[in-house]
Amino acid sequence: MRDFSQDHRWLSINTATVRQQHGVDWPLLDILDACAARGIRAVSPWRDQVAAAGLQATARKLQDHGIELSGYCRGGMFTYTDAARRQASRDDNKRALDEACTLNAPCLVLVVGGLPGALAGRAAHRDIQGAREQVTEGIAALLEDARERHMLLAIEPLHPMYAADRACINTMAQALDVCDALDPDRTGALGLAVDLYHVWWDPTLAEQITRAGTARLLAFHVCDWLTPTTHLLEDRGMMGDGVIDIPRIRALVEAQGFAGYSEVEIFSRSNWWQRDGGQVLDTCVERHRSCV
Amino acid sequence: MRDFSQDHRWLSINTATVRQQHGVDWPLLDILDACAARGIRAVSPWRDQVAAAGLQATARKLQDHGIELSGYCRGGMFTYTDAARRQASRDDNKRALDEACTLNAPCLVLVVGGLPGALAGRAAHRDIQGAREQVTEGIAALLEDARERHMLLAIEPLHPMYAADRACINTMAQALDVCDALDPDRTGALGLAVDLYHVWWDPTLAEQITRAGTARLLAFHVCDWLTPTTHLLEDRGMMGDGVIDIPRIRALVEAQGFAGYSEVEIFSRSNWWQRDGGQVLDTCVERHRSCV
Repeated sequence: MRDFSQDHRWLSINTATVRQQHGVDWPLLDILDACAARGIRAVSPWRDQVAAAGLQATARKLQDHGIELSGYCRGGMFTYTDAARRQASRDDNKRALDEACTLNAPCLVLVVGGLPGALAGRAAHRDIQGAREQVTEGIAALLEDARERHMLLAIEPLHPMYAADRACINTMAQALDVCDALDPDRTGALGLAVDLYHVWWDPTLAEQITRAGTARLLAFHVCDWLTPTTHLLEDRGMMGDGVIDIPRIRALVEAQGFAGYSEVEIFSRSNWWQRDGGQVLDTCVERHRSCV
Repeated sequence: MRDFSQDHRWLSINTATVRQQHGVDWPLLDILDACAARGIRAVSPWRDQVAAAGLQATARKLQDHGIELSGYCRGGMFTYTDAARRQASRDDNKRALDEACTLNAPCLVLVVGGLPGALAGRAAHRDIQGAREQVTEGIAALLEDARERHMLLAIEPLHPMYAADRACINTMAQALDVCDALDPDRTGALGLAVDLYHVWWDPTLAEQITRAGTARLLAFHVCDWLTPTTHLLEDRGMMGDGVIDIPRIRALVEAQGFAGYSEVEIFSRSNWWQRDGGQVLDTCVERHRSCV
């Protein structure tokens, strides 16, 4: 297991962690400057942040600073109610792939979608099995486009509390079943983004990490689970402030050969998003060394 | 599959559903009167409600109305940090068993506990595997006491969002593994309380219901999952108001031979707990017929 205590060369910042400080959007190019100033070598930006900054301007800034991506957030949202929406999803995912290529991302992270309409508060139906079949079909189609571009796809299993509205792939086992079905030869083109917030509770976690192996462990995200958690989406904790045994799980992942970045992704409306962005980044560096 | 549309003979009310209306506790004996007035034949009361009403007074009222229990809520909370706390948990669980016997409950429902201290906001450690081992030991010990009293134990897998603070048994598969370990002969002494709020999302749900079989399906709880869900604990929905395909899952359970009550358990601080209790019960009856 790598020693993180002496430096933060394997720290990546998911830019949602500092996307809005004191309620004001922190522009992506400024976030990149702040990361560079702290010797942070990698980020994972969100598409809306990139769109606001400009794709080419983002690519130039990354190059200027020598910052690389640990992933690109995000494609997915494969579920649909009609052919037009399916096509719109496919088109949008292709654009996400192209952006990921421009930014030289190692993978496109997929949040697969839940019941159609549920995220807007009104699910079109209750057929989660049907939604799951649409997701598998959508990933299958996107995988062809991704292979053409030599871009890897990383399915992110989301916590079961998001099954209805954000992602109906909710366990590592389920995500790996999709990988087995669509990439039976384990070419590495399709794998997982393992976010500890979503999977830490899973009694089969160690077994599934072994099953994934190095070929399918494409990204590793950290934050912490707070007790109490006061909001389903935006009350994630900083590493060390919660109950997840992060080093234990990192050891499992690294035992499989994972040697990439540890990406910090924290949505925290009432705490970390209310602080100075530089302070948040400094804390990420410190906690990366002491708690990851 | 039984037809629920013509009557509500298989409706049970978990009394937490109407425990506090407009912020005021509704006394259990009054709840029982209101259930009897509506022809509701079963309830599942909570220990604190029984304690407030008096155990013998509750037993008499149930007998007077001819209301039976679909379960008794609840035993469990097996995790501990020291021998004194372990003993306190054991003693308390024995008392719960005795109360369940006095009330002629078919089973004692077990919410097994999470990381010690987490429910109070300060987890003593991050070793969820260790907590899970304590839970298995605790159930094993209680099972002896339960067998002596001819009282069944029903492990309730709780949604993974409660893994830290309420219950570290979070899937049906995990609960059934405990059953297999402690009651390999499938005597029926140990089984599951299947609450759809906790398990609806599970991609292996149908498979695990089949695995449980009639011997281990001891209780069936319903409510609904709202989108959005605004609170992790107290924003459950009334059947029909959310995304759970309740009839589909009831069909799976009944295909295994389950023929017991469908127990409504809704914690809803900002909606159902703010209404007149009689109106809530009337709605439960109506939705039981139309949406379960």
